[in-house]
Amino acid sequence: MKNKHLVKPDDFTVEEIDSIIELGMQIKQNPREYIKVCEGYLMATLFYEPSTRTRLSFESAMSRLGGKIIGFSDPNASSVSKGESLEDTITTVSKYVDIIAMRHPQSGAAQQAASVSSVPFINAGDGGNQHPTQTLTDLLTIKSCMKRLDNLTIGMCGDLKYGRTVHSLAKAMSRYKNIKFVFISPEELKMPEYVLNDLGDTQFIETNSLDDSIAELDILYMTRIQRERFEDRDEYERLKDVYILDSKKMENAKSDMIVMHPLPRVNEISTDVDIDSRAMYFEQAQYGMYVRMALIMKLLGISK
Amino acid sequence: MKNKHLVKPDDFTVEEIDSIIELGMQIKQNPREYIKVCEGYLMATLFYEPSTRTRLSFESAMSRLGGKIIGFSDPNASSVSKGESLEDTITTVSKYVDIIAMRHPQSGAAQQAASVSSVPFINAGDGGNQHPTQTLTDLLTIKSCMKRLDNLTIGMCGDLKYGRTVHSLAKAMSRYKNIKFVFISPEELKMPEYVLNDLGDTQFIETNSLDDSIAELDILYMTRIQRERFEDRDEYERLKDVYILDSKKMENAKSDMIVMHPLPRVNEISTDVDIDSRAMYFEQAQYGMYVRMALIMKLLGISK
Amino acid sequence: MKNKHLVKPDDFTVEEIDSIIELGMQIKQNPREYIKVCEGYLMATLFYEPSTRTRLSFESAMSRLGGKIIGFSDPNASSVSKGESLEDTITTVSKYVDIIAMRHPQSGAAQQAASVSSVPFINAGDGGNQHPTQTLTDLLTIKSCMKRLDNLTIGMCGDLKYGRTVHSLAKAMSRYKNIKFVFISPEELKMPEYVLNDLGDTQFIETNSLDDSIAELDILYMTRIQRERFEDRDEYERLKDVYILDSKKMENAKSDMIVMHPLPRVNEISTDVDIDSRAMYFEQAQYGMYVRMALIMKLLGISK
Repeated sequence: MKNKHLVKPDDFTVEEIDSIIELGMQIKQNPREYIKVCEGYLMATLFYEPSTRTRLSFESAMSRLGGKIIGFSDPNASSVSKGESLEDTITTVSKYVDIIAMRHPQSGAAQQAASVSSVPFINAGDGGNQHPTQTLTDLLTIKSCMKRLDNLTIGMCGDLKYGRTVHSLAKAMSRYKNIKFVFISPEELKMPEYVLNDLGDTQFIETNSLDDSIAELDILYMTRIQRERFEDRDEYERLKDVYILDSKKMENAKSDMIVMHPLPRVNEISTDVDIDSRAMYFEQAQYGMYVRMALIMKLLGISK
Repeated sequence: MKNKHLVKPDDFTVEEIDSIIELGMQIKQNPREYIKVCEGYLMATLFYEPSTRTRLSFESAMSRLGGKIIGFSDPNASSVSKGESLEDTITTVSKYVDIIAMRHPQSGAAQQAASVSSVPFINAGDGGNQHPTQTLTDLLTIKSCMKRLDNLTIGMCGDLKYGRTVHSLAKAMSRYKNIKFVFISPEELKMPEYVLNDLGDTQFIETNSLDDSIAELDILYMTRIQRERFEDRDEYERLKDVYILDSKKMENAKSDMIVMHPLPRVNEISTDVDIDSRAMYFEQAQYGMYVRMALIMKLLGISK
Repeated sequence: MKNKHLVKPDDFTVEEIDSIIELGMQIKQNPREYIKVCEGYLMATLFYEPSTRTRLSFESAMSRLGGKIIGFSDPNASSVSKGESLEDTITTVSKYVDIIAMRHPQSGAAQQAASVSSVPFINAGDGGNQHPTQTLTDLLTIKSCMKRLDNLTIGMCGDLKYGRTVHSLAKAMSRYKNIKFVFISPEELKMPEYVLNDLGDTQFIETNSLDDSIAELDILYMTRIQRERFEDRDEYERLKDVYILDSKKMENAKSDMIVMHPLPRVNEISTDVDIDSRAMYFEQAQYGMYVRMALIMKLLGISK
């Protein structure tokens, strides 16, 4: 995997992904064994649009490996270019550093940048495209909590139409054996046809009731329903509560089901769920750090 | 003290404060002995409003201990939340790092954040509240320069009404033996009653003359008089010069008196005082770094 | 050189510059031998105006030496001062760090800051003044690529009137033996008289034709022609293409000529030149990092 780029989730084979997940689990077990493995290495975090959460995750990952960071994080950073092309900026920065993570508002910018980078390049989101490290985060969370990536019934709930996180995850999980999906959403926000077509022969059912389906799930992946998605305000008001997870709904779930959410959470998960031991969304953020540590090590060709 | 939070100056006992001051003095003596003690540790500096001076002090402290830093420093950082609660942000960030220092424009935000932080949390200022590390800075400066925290006559001069720095310091110093305060201010800007009530049986006098009182002081703590505090512009013009410290006024001071100021200084201390060996305000900034180094070590439970 | 400041290109003697270049070449050979030499050292990068490229160069340099960085990078950083003088800010920051690099929009600010800094101070650009580390960058690039700093025919092409980079470099190169300059520009943008007067008895010719002169050059230093420099838009349109370097013009150049450019490049070098092995402008950016590493080591008095 050394010196590869990660632009989109399927840039890696299942075997490569599994090896990242495996390393992520080892790091999670003994993080202090890794505090010097990237000593002397330098990462650039180039954020052409602010995304503090994603940036902090990458920077904590590199920092916890003993590596150092340079970069920028604000919209004014466009001053980096003064009219120069993205290609020139990346060519230059890759003369300074050993690895680059970039966020950019334009769809396609990641591919463009990766094509000229002389060091490993990680897409931290470009335009509407989901950044592939979220998918890796979700996979590590599932593997760590459930001890397996196969034989799972996975509920995805909320806005399945626009939620790119669940699109990528559904596709990634469909590569494993004996997966069953339960897609829970209002009619208006159903999983798009092109995502369903990508799932191969993986079983799925579609429903609009969280209450009716929660009991059979091993994993419940919640997403946010955004008001802006609805033309009809009344429709939004009617629907938004139906898809809010609270401690009452949790009573019907399996005792070892886990609740996931890519964060930030607004109100789609009631805070009374936070103390439930099945709530894994904050741990998920931490897994995001561990999986980025693993990814950085793999792309730099560093082992412990 | 390990894993405690520091939200307000009196979160620590006198003994705890003394142990921080003691460690700060040791670090000041041999800073290079501490350059690796926080290796592998990560601090978040979350500045929801810009305060470059305070941020640089925290970041230099962690850096000089060998630790690393992630964070944000600008108002746009509100993008960290995208509608999420401060509690969720802190819960998430405390999954990434070992210690958090936060600055926030809202009074009470520090307590709110500390209540959910799973790692030690330091208040770097919230709303009008004075950040407690300024008080620690002042105490270390006094102890280092005077070799004692008791038996001192301490003048505080300028805006004693609104200056929270001097409120906190007066309260903190009143815990030590044989302290005498001389509060020097115009009538309009006298030390508030509620601060005086907090001083227990510590002696104090109030005066409006710096010239008359400077001779008896061991410490002169200067503060800025802000034009905005005066309804009457003429009154401001009349008063502002009376409370400016210059080399002429310094002639009447003891040869071992020290001059302190929390900085930034505007014109309340004439620059001709800077070369006076009794001027300690820039050293005070450096003590601020050393005391934060000590604080970080204590909260992380790290010894040399 | 320990504890010196670098404010303007001629603050250093030829011998001092040569020793920096020499160290820069050694670092370039074996960069991983230097990854800990600045361990425990702290640099401040104080950017009062954004200049992401320059900041990243300094920060990558310090990072690659094992040192740490604090600082600010945006215009809001003026909040650092809240009415305090630049001198007070620098005096304070030099209590925190071991070395300072500063960028400031006002001409003369660097000299003002250096005069109060108690630690080595590097001018990273103030107002229209060229920052001296660009000149060091250019010298290291030439020495590394050509194996000598003497006996060279150096073409400088484009806007020679306003381009401070070429002013500084011409002056610096005129200190070496048997240098010949070819100044290639439109009449409107000729090298100013005061620069020519600084060249001593170094030979130079002036021409407006890149095509006619390229064949004799050992080095071609390209600069950007800015539309704003022309009162007459038609004149700009007529001239801009004449001074664009493309692969066709390169056919007439020596096989071991090198092409330099301070970057960012807009369109004055056609991208079809990028793959030409004589194109050194991106390597030049990397030499900029190495020469800053050398400079930091020298000013801190650190040897391997």
